[in-house]
This record gives sequence, C-alpha cells and structure tokens, in this order.
Amino acid sequence: MIFRVKDMGIATGGPLIATINKRDAEELDLHYGDRVSILTQHHTIVAIINIADGHAVQSGMIGLYEEVMKKLNVRSNSKVSTRLEERPSSLAFIKKKLEGRALSSDELDQLVTDIVKNRLSDIELAYFVAACHLRSMSNYETISLTKAMINTGDILKLRRKVVADKHCTGGVAGNRTTMMVVPICVAAGITMPKTSSRSITSPAGTADTMEVLAKVDFTLKKMKSIVENVGGCIVWGGAINLAPADDRIIRVEHPLSIDSRSQLLASIMAKKASVSATHLLVDIPVDPFGKISTRARAQSLKKDFMSIGMQLGIKTNVVITDGSHPIGHGLGPQLEARDVLWVLMGDERGPEDLRKKSLKLAGIILEMAGKAKKGKGMKKAEALLESGEAYRKMLEMIKAQGGKKPNPEKLHKARFSLEVKASYSGKLTHLNNSILSKIARIAGAPQDKGAGIYMHHSLGSNVGKTQPVYTVFSNNQRRLGYAEDIVKAAKGFRVR
Amino acid sequence: MIFRVKDMGIATGGPLIATINKRDAEELDLHYGDRVSILTQHHTIVAIINIADGHAVQSGMIGLYEEVMKKLNVRSNSKVSTRLEERPSSLAFIKKKLEGRALSSDELDQLVTDIVKNRLSDIELAYFVAACHLRSMSNYETISLTKAMINTGDILKLRRKVVADKHCTGGVAGNRTTMMVVPICVAAGITMPKTSSRSITSPAGTADTMEVLAKVDFTLKKMKSIVENVGGCIVWGGAINLAPADDRIIRVEHPLSIDSRSQLLASIMAKKASVSATHLLVDIPVDPFGKISTRARAQSLKKDFMSIGMQLGIKTNVVITDGSHPIGHGLGPQLEARDVLWVLMGDERGPEDLRKKSLKLAGIILEMAGKAKKGKGMKKAEALLESGEAYRKMLEMIKAQGGKKPNPEKLHKARFSLEVKASYSGKLTHLNNSILSKIARIAGAPQDKGAGIYMHHSLGSNVGKTQPVYTVFSNNQRRLGYAEDIVKAAKGFRVR
Repeated sequence: MIFRVKDMGIATGGPLIATINKRDAEELDLHYGDRVSILTQHHTIVAIINIADGHAVQSGMIGLYEEVMKKLNVRSNSKVSTRLEERPSSLAFIKKKLEGRALSSDELDQLVTDIVKNRLSDIELAYFVAACHLRSMSNYETISLTKAMINTGDILKLRRKVVADKHCTGGVAGNRTTMMVVPICVAAGITMPKTSSRSITSPAGTADTMEVLAKVDFTLKKMKSIVENVGGCIVWGGAINLAPADDRIIRVEHPLSIDSRSQLLASIMAKKASVSATHLLVDIPVDPFGKISTRARAQSLKKDFMSIGMQLGIKTNVVITDGSHPIGHGLGPQLEARDVLWVLMGDERGPEDLRKKSLKLAGIILEMAGKAKKGKGMKKAEALLESGEAYRKMLEMIKAQGGKKPNPEKLHKARFSLEVKASYSGKLTHLNNSILSKIARIAGAPQDKGAGIYMHHSLGSNVGKTQPVYTVFSNNQRRLGYAEDIVKAAKGFRVR
Repeated sequence: MIFRVKDMGIATGGPLIATINKRDAEELDLHYGDRVSILTQHHTIVAIINIADGHAVQSGMIGLYEEVMKKLNVRSNSKVSTRLEERPSSLAFIKKKLEGRALSSDELDQLVTDIVKNRLSDIELAYFVAACHLRSMSNYETISLTKAMINTGDILKLRRKVVADKHCTGGVAGNRTTMMVVPICVAAGITMPKTSSRSITSPAGTADTMEVLAKVDFTLKKMKSIVENVGGCIVWGGAINLAPADDRIIRVEHPLSIDSRSQLLASIMAKKASVSATHLLVDIPVDPFGKISTRARAQSLKKDFMSIGMQLGIKTNVVITDGSHPIGHGLGPQLEARDVLWVLMGDERGPEDLRKKSLKLAGIILEMAGKAKKGKGMKKAEALLESGEAYRKMLEMIKAQGGKKPNPEKLHKARFSLEVKASYSGKLTHLNNSILSKIARIAGAPQDKGAGIYMHHSLGSNVGKTQPVYTVFSNNQRRLGYAEDIVKAAKGFRVR
C-alpha cells in the first residue's frame, strides 16, 4: 500500500515507529507491534507499527518520527510504500526464555544486538526482562549474555599486562572509596581506567562527585590517552559506549523497579571486560535496610562474581563490607569531594571511616596486582597516602581531566542550611542510608552540587541535645523546605 | 516546576503521557514511567512521564497529547505545574505476581480497574501478562479476575429465568454454527443475547458474517430492546462495553503472541456473565495443526470452563469436537452467510456438516434449558429447523437488527476468481484450516465481504484432475494474485 507521510514532529529516542490509521491497519491486517518495511525509491527501513485510533493519523497517511524521516530522507506528503516484515528472530528467543528454555550464545548475541540497535519495542523488552527475572539464567547463559554485551559495545584497548578495576554494588551514602583507591593504586604503578556511574538513588554517584573537581565525560579515545599518560582516570561511564545494552534494559526495568540478577551481573562484568580489566575487586556492602540485606545474599552474589570473572579471565576478588550506615561526613557531590580531598591531603578533618575502608580496598588491589606481598597491601596503601603520592596522582588526574587544583576550603557552596538536632542526648546508634539519601536528594543533590548533608557526628559518638547531629544544605530554599518535611517525619538517625 | 505546554498534535489512544526534556527529568529526578500530576488552576490529571532525548521537547516545555490537553483544557504555551505522584498500587501487585505470590480479589479488582481506566503503561501491562503467563493463576485468582472483569464493564440485565449463551474456542474456518444455533434456540423460546467477535486470524468472525445480513454494532440499550422483542440477537461484542479489560491486554499480548490461559478464560466467562447468561455451551474444536491440538488439552480446558462456570453460577456444558478441517462450503463473510441461509431455508445446497454440528449444539442447549427431554434435544432442533421456525426467527432477528430479507442467490459478489485443482485424482483426505484461512484472508476476507474460498468438495469425497477442489474469490485482482502465490506454495488440501 502507498502512504503519504505525516511528520509527527518529534523524535522517539527509542525504536523506529510508524503510525497508521486503524482502518488501514485492518485493511492490511496489521497489528500493534507488527514490523513493516517502509520503502522509498532509494531507502528502506524497518519500523514497528503503532495504530492511531482517532484523527491523529488519517487513513492513507503514515505518521513518522524524526529518526525515521531522516533515515528515509522524506518530508511531509512524500509517498512511501510498506511491506509486512517477518518478526525479528529475537522475539522467538524472548518467548523461548519466557517458556523457561535456555538460550544459546548465538540467540543471546542476536537478542543483545537487536536491543542495542533499538529494534525491539518497549513491550518486547519488558517481556525479556520479565523472562530473565522469572526464569533464572544458567551460568552458561549469564556468560553468553556478558559476552554479547561486550561485543555490542566499544572496547578500551590498553597494552598493559595489569589493568585493575573496582566495583561497588552500592547503597551506601557517601561511599566515595573509588576516588581514594584509584589514586593510591595508580600511584603504585597500576593502570586503572575507572568508569563510574552517576547517582540513581543516592545523593551522588562517583561520577557526580568527581565532576566537582574535573570533567568526567570523555570520548573513548580521549579517555585512553588520559589513562596512557597518567595511568588512570575516573570518568563517567555513560558518555562512553561500553557494553551499552543495559541502558535500554534499565529503562523498562524502572517502572516496576525490577532487578534481574543475571542482567546486572552481566552488564557489570561486561563493562569491566570492555576496559580490558585483568584484575577486579568487588565491594558488596551489606545493609539490613538495603537491597543486599544479609551476609548470605552477599555470599551468593560473591560466588557469581567470582565465577563470571574466572570465565572471562579476570582475576576477581570480592569483599563483603558493613553497609549499614553512610561513610564519610558529607553526602552530596561537593561535600563528598571535600571529604576525599581532606583524606588525600592528610587533613585531620578527613573522615576516618572513608580513609580506613579505602586503604583496605586499595591494599587488596595492590596485593592482587603484585605491588605488595600478601598481608602487606594495606600498609603499602597507607604509605602511598601518607607520603602524598596518592594526592599528587589525584592532582595529575584532575589536571588531565581538565580540572584545576582544588581548594577544599572553598569547595562547598550552599546558600541555605538547616540544622538537625537529636531530641535527647545519648549515643548515636544508627544512621539510615536511605532516609539520609532521600533528604539529601530532596535538598537538591546531585544536580545541585552544593546540596546534601554534613554529619557532625559519626556512628557511636555521643551527641548532646543542643548540638546538631547533621546540617542539610541546599541552594534552593523551597527544596530545603521539602527536605525539612521529610526530617519532621524521619531524621534518619537513632540516639539511645 | 512550571512547564509550558507543547501540543504534540496527536492522540495516543492509550494511557495519558507527558513528555519532558531529559535535562528537566534529571533536575526533577524523574524517570521514564514515573507518574506526575499535571495541574492547572482548575484541573488535575495524572500522566506517565516520557523523556525526550533530543529537541523533541525543549527544556521548560511539557509535551502533551490530545487526550491530556482536552482533559486539562489547555493549549500550546499554557502554563502547568507538575507534582510527583506515588506509583499506582497496581504496580506492587504486578510485581507480587511476577514474584510468584497469589493476588487477592481486592488486588485483582484494583489491577483490572487500572487497566480499564488506562492507568498502566504498555510496559507495566506487559509485565502483568508475563506474570500471568509464567506464574499460573490459582482457581481462586481466575475467579477473582473474572469478577473484576465483569465489575469494570457494563451489564446487560434481562428479567428472564433462562438466558443461554454459547462459545467456541475457535480455529475452525467457516464454523458459523452460532448463526444456526441462536435462531433454533430462540425459536424454541430461549433467550439468547449473543455477542460475537470479528475475525482475528480466520476469514470471518461471526460478527463479520452476520454483518452481511444485518447491522451488528449496537449500544447496550438497543441490544437489550432487540433481545426483549425478538428473544435473541447476534451482535458484535466490540461495540459494547462488556468486560472490556481484555481489549487492552490483547494489545500487549500480540507482539509475542502470548496467550495467557487464565486471562483468556476469565475474559470469555466475564463476557458471558455480563450478558446475564444462566446456561452456557462451550465448543472446543481439536485440530492437530491448531492451538488446541490434542484431546487432552481440550479436556483440561473443559475442566477449567466447568469450574469457573459453576463458581459464577452459570450452568456450563462443554463439547469437544473435531476441528481438523473447515466447516461449510464457504470461507469468507458472504460465502458463509449464504451457507447459513441455505441450511436455514432447507436448500439442498446447504452444507451438511454445518447443519449437523449446529443441530447437535442446539440440541444440547435445548436440553440444558429444559426445552427438550434428555436425548431428545437434537430431534427437537431438527424439527425447529425443518418447520421453518428457525428460519423465520432468523428473519425476525435480521429485521430487528436493521437488515432486509436476504436472497442467498444474490448474496455473493466477487469480481475475480481463481480455480484450484488437485494435481491428480483421488480422495480428499485433508483440508488445512490455517492454510485455507490464510489464502482467504490474503484474497481480502473479511474486509472484502465477497472475498474467500468456496469448497466444491467436502472431506472424504472423490476429486478428479479436471474439476476444481475450490475457487478463491476476490474483488481485488492484486490481492487474488497474492493468494495465488500462496496456493502455489501450499494448496491446503491433500488427495490420496
């Protein structure tokens, strides 16, 4: 059938869609979600059919979005023809998985390719997520999925024997160990091309905090040159096309907050393999109020990380840590960056818990990479920190990433603040990650770099009734008011 | 945040959507699929957030579709504000089901209400379908789902003690028994408010074929008055709002051709309960090449129908029939309508298989409804047919539904035809429903009412090489050409 093009005037940002009138759909026996080829004299693309009920697209017209019009090089009222296409083979694989059958590596390759190339609709992708969530994946499938994710993205090739990486499964507010571990290890001569994420539910992700000190979005080429010159970097993974399949997957997981373990594992490990990591340390914090709430769950996840790591040829080590409370004094990009600088500079205001945990993690990597004898890693890390070598390496990285030498005294700026006190004096026995994160986020973090929380006391210390336990900062008074509403309902700490 | 409205210029026909720029989404910590209230001075609606990557919707703008603009009474550049909304509780229920836990009747009620009110996105609905498909529903859940479907639609209230209905699970081409059974039973004094569907994969649904003789889309009020005057009707269910939840569910099932048994059962039985049926006969044809391919599957389905029927207080009877080949001579609306009229009028050209099966089904209903003694139903049906009472009742129904007295000799019109012969002479041992259906559909059925197939021979008869086994009709030569392409690959019959 010949259609005239209607320009829908927008882009979908997702799969290619073509909208036709209900009457034409009936005539052509086309259904919502069917694929058609749209043909001009010179171009052909495959799009997914959407059906317009009302006058949106009149009979004889085909509504096309920006992406499709560009690819076909057509404009309003251009004539195009359509032809029914077979459904992509990926759909059969999704159905197969839904029915509980295992997928081969070829099938997973095709599936991930179709996901990355935006050939699947959100509905189809949701079925894939549901299938992976409900029909657990075998070890073999998880490895195949990981490899498929690696193959559909870019690769950072580094001619180094040892390339170390670290990963944290998250959930601990203020936990900026990456910004400590990377300079320490790089100062010891280890290559660490670290990509980090922005915050999803926390007051800041490592990328948000590093962005206070330097730029974090680089092309793969520029990232490579930084790593080759300095030995390491801390950049935002989102700007680089490493194992990009999970971006689209996460989009359809969000509405139901679905977490598919195999997918999560596969996408984490694929990103590590994509930066050519040879050694990997994974930190799994356990928080009774968080996602990984028991040591048993952490142990089981540890086993999976080790197994996939082994099969990818990445020497993997996993530490299970206490994630029951925030780490550091500050929650929010500028406040966290200041904590990191204080520790790196040896300033006594630097939070001890951040220092200790970072030294522990760095020590393990130093041992894994052969830069310290077994049992001596933490000592070596401490030496690199105390000598100022780690700090100098950090300054090098900041400079290489386009930043200036930072001054921690001038780093934090917030126009408004709110002091939160305990209702009675006693010992601080509990700090709740998710409540404190929520307060910091409502106050504006991470978009408002100065927003967040500064903890005046750490866990276990005694607090009086007259002194604040923490201060909430924001550059937006309305937002600070919202944060106050939350504080009134739950302060996020306990005093006994 | 205050947004200015951008008119997206189209309707979605589905849930309410609001599109904002990626930057604003980050600022407000909004994610794809989140709900926001959109507020004007006088109106508030809840919409699902869509995020525009490019220039589609600029920062500070909010892209709204026709439905939303109408409800808010806004126009381009109107100012609206937004507020983050909690996720509908239905999402928690979908997740619960995904995790394999049973849903309560209150939860299913809320879910179906949200589906019918278009409050769930396609992605969320896909998760519900996947959950129902993967985690089978208990009997109790299926009943709750059925009741929820009934409660969210209209009800045809009839002050009759006995209201009979029939249902066929489908897959048999030409199987127009409804158009025989209804006039026979109504002639015997039974009330039959029959709603039928249009074709999905067959050359014609009962509604398509009845439409050759009369109108089939009526309001519930008009349908009620027809039934009260004539005793029965054969109308299109799609025009009436009986248990409408499945329309939206089917939309998201299509891309993966997912069939959820509980949903299917629930929606069928809900539609029967919605017309106040007290007695129901279900016909389950078994076709080795079709969906219900074995007697065992049919038996298991029978059990489910009986069980739900009992719990809804509907006396239910199920017959398992031979569905391995088409029924009647004609496939396609006009050809099938002519078959029906021939049988009703006692014309010898009427297909014997249609006559026999219809009498059998009608006989069972007559017995169920107490209009014939046990074992005497079929005889009674035959008497009603042979006396012309059934035919006169059909004429009454056609008249009440706005049709004229039909003339079977002038009913079928097709400009083009194609005779299909056997490659050698022998006995006709197999007729394939799906291949013949596909040929008839490609020829134009059911949109082209005259298109379809006329079988010159029935199963078991001897065919010669010179005479056609069937003729394909179409009013569109191009379409007939496409049908010929299929015939060349597979004729849909076997001669031995």
